Amino acid sequence: MDRIYLDNNSTTAVDPRVFKAMLADLSGPPGNPSSIHWFGQQAKSRLMAARQTAADFFHAKPDEITFTSCGTESLNLMLRGLKPVGHIITTSIEHSSMHRTIQSLEAQGLSVTYSPVGLWGAPLPDQIESQIRPDTRAIALSASNGETGVRIDIQAIAEIAEKRGVPLLLDCVSYVGKESLPIHPGISAISLSGHKFHAPKGIGLLFHRSSLKISPLLTGGNQEYQLRAGTENLASILGLAEAFSILKENQMAITSQLRDLRLHFENGLKRSLEDIAINGEGPRISNTSNIAFLGVDGETLLMQLDLAGIAASLGSACSSGALEPSRVLIQMGIDKKTVRSSLRFSFARTNNREEVDRAIETIIPIVKKLKK
Amino acid sequence: MDRIYLDNNSTTAVDPRVFKAMLADLSGPPGNPSSIHWFGQQAKSRLMAARQTAADFFHAKPDEITFTSCGTESLNLMLRGLKPVGHIITTSIEHSSMHRTIQSLEAQGLSVTYSPVGLWGAPLPDQIESQIRPDTRAIALSASNGETGVRIDIQAIAEIAEKRGVPLLLDCVSYVGKESLPIHPGISAISLSGHKFHAPKGIGLLFHRSSLKISPLLTGGNQEYQLRAGTENLASILGLAEAFSILKENQMAITSQLRDLRLHFENGLKRSLEDIAINGEGPRISNTSNIAFLGVDGETLLMQLDLAGIAASLGSACSSGALEPSRVLIQMGIDKKTVRSSLRFSFARTNNREEVDRAIETIIPIVKKLKK
Repeated sequence: MDRIYLDNNSTTAVDPRVFKAMLADLSGPPGNPSSIHWFGQQAKSRLMAARQTAADFFHAKPDEITFTSCGTESLNLMLRGLKPVGHIITTSIEHSSMHRTIQSLEAQGLSVTYSPVGLWGAPLPDQIESQIRPDTRAIALSASNGETGVRIDIQAIAEIAEKRGVPLLLDCVSYVGKESLPIHPGISAISLSGHKFHAPKGIGLLFHRSSLKISPLLTGGNQEYQLRAGTENLASILGLAEAFSILKENQMAITSQLRDLRLHFENGLKRSLEDIAINGEGPRISNTSNIAFLGVDGETLLMQLDLAGIAASLGSACSSGALEPSRVLIQMGIDKKTVRSSLRFSFARTNNREEVDRAIETIIPIVKKLKK
Repeated sequence: MDRIYLDNNSTTAVDPRVFKAMLADLSGPPGNPSSIHWFGQQAKSRLMAARQTAADFFHAKPDEITFTSCGTESLNLMLRGLKPVGHIITTSIEHSSMHRTIQSLEAQGLSVTYSPVGLWGAPLPDQIESQIRPDTRAIALSASNGETGVRIDIQAIAEIAEKRGVPLLLDCVSYVGKESLPIHPGISAISLSGHKFHAPKGIGLLFHRSSLKISPLLTGGNQEYQLRAGTENLASILGLAEAFSILKENQMAITSQLRDLRLHFENGLKRSLEDIAINGEGPRISNTSNIAFLGVDGETLLMQLDLAGIAASLGSACSSGALEPSRVLIQMGIDKKTVRSSLRFSFARTNNREEVDRAIETIIPIVKKLKK
């Protein structure tokens, strides 16, 4: 069966150029970047070049880049490493790696304001500003929601953060690779995960300005400017750097391709299906469609689509296994029945129009059958 | 220049079979093991098979295996995750990932006994037993020292741990791959790092018995039985499982090869050089020689060897950059001058006798020249 993968917010295929970049370490001579001999220096110079590429992506200095093992580690380092006391502003629709980590800090005494998002699907700048208190230590938000694709107004919120002197910590896991990222001076830290934009699973990154004091979670060797002990995952770091290089060259074309695929998909469905609705009224990133197929059970639809060779999802892969309907959609105020009828489709540059056409042709009769 | 890499305790080359195992994820279709569609289930079944292979290696159940990003993370999870209060027994010659983590817990109020190791290079079982207190929460030791290769008496210490009901936590980063590992019931947890035995950098593992309660360091998704959030580094996990399979089939032959290379190396040097001494009087694992070239400055020798194409090291790569002489050797009570004349050579199955012969022929004249 010629399967169609429309779940790229869960993970993406490794780009062949990324894979090729990894080979220098994976099938080259051994080398630990901390070793002072020739082999170590080869590894170290590759690591430094990759760090420079990553730093350039954020208009940052190399020591403002920390390579981690995943987006979750980046977020934990960003939030726990800040050792926040006082107050923090976030929303209740963040990814579990942010949501549960903040809940864990809350249980330890941190005061948390969950800014409302409503059917719009993102917190509004004015609201955020009104929630700042004298003891507000950070504003922690995702640049775009992984389930709906709805974007926050990065520019406006970053301006507020800068003006009010409160660090803005951005989870950009679902954003990077879909839209170009404005590096506003009001942004103090950004976490991301390589496997969401065609680097392998197992590599993440934290950018944080040197003005933001962060303590390590893992202690040991002196790697990563003493902020993250452990021998560096060099192969994946080289892959991540290549993924950044590809975005630097092609982000506009990629965004345009992703938006075209998504709009083509949404329009195709809308033409033939009544009673469908896009979850999230706010502006979205290019690649994500969270669609309510009213009157259809989402889980059944997901299974039927899987049997027909189309991969979508009920929400974040990291929440799967849970039988509850999507926390994100519920917290937006969408009624449970609509939530239970919703599926997420997320596109990548590895998809094409022909696949989207086939997906539409497959989905429509299945939805019509299930509605009967 | 045909370089010879004798620093395999820093890192090893990825085995071609390991690399091949990684390709299923690195160049296959995308798949997040948490996704419930076909792509996700392919990834999940690979992950489960790899976890079973790892569990078999430790005669353990799959839920006693936690995949991490490196040995340092495994050790931090083992030690910090235990949330120890009361007392812990360790030594002052542990790798920085253990040493600094315990120091950090000590600063938070944990009482620590540093068991003496002396010129022998490892703590003695009787001594360990005499240091157990009613509030001793754990004995945390490396199975073998990464700098000298000296082994602890695992069997005897595990028996004490079992008899006295104190969890024995073993850092096996420098041990696995060099000797077969006895899984005594007195051992409660084992940490290791894949890149020390021909898996890639960026993958580690913690084995811990279900009786040992450990809390996660990273919160978020439900991966790794809720002990380690974050999308799994599937490619490297597949590689690690293959590295275990290779050891399962070949450990005896590998140990014998490594011991042969090391003895051939040590005997070759001894025949032509007076005033050399092996650091660490206790029995050693197969692959490690820490040699004092008395009257020679180790750093100069290291540089000269590097220029001549031979890679060795002054000690742990994770401590490099530090100008101080090896903490491990100093804490063994070796005088500073001897410490400063010492180099570590560590062999792997990727080395051969011809390389060892060339290394000996290169080292001898350089040492003789430097002694003048």
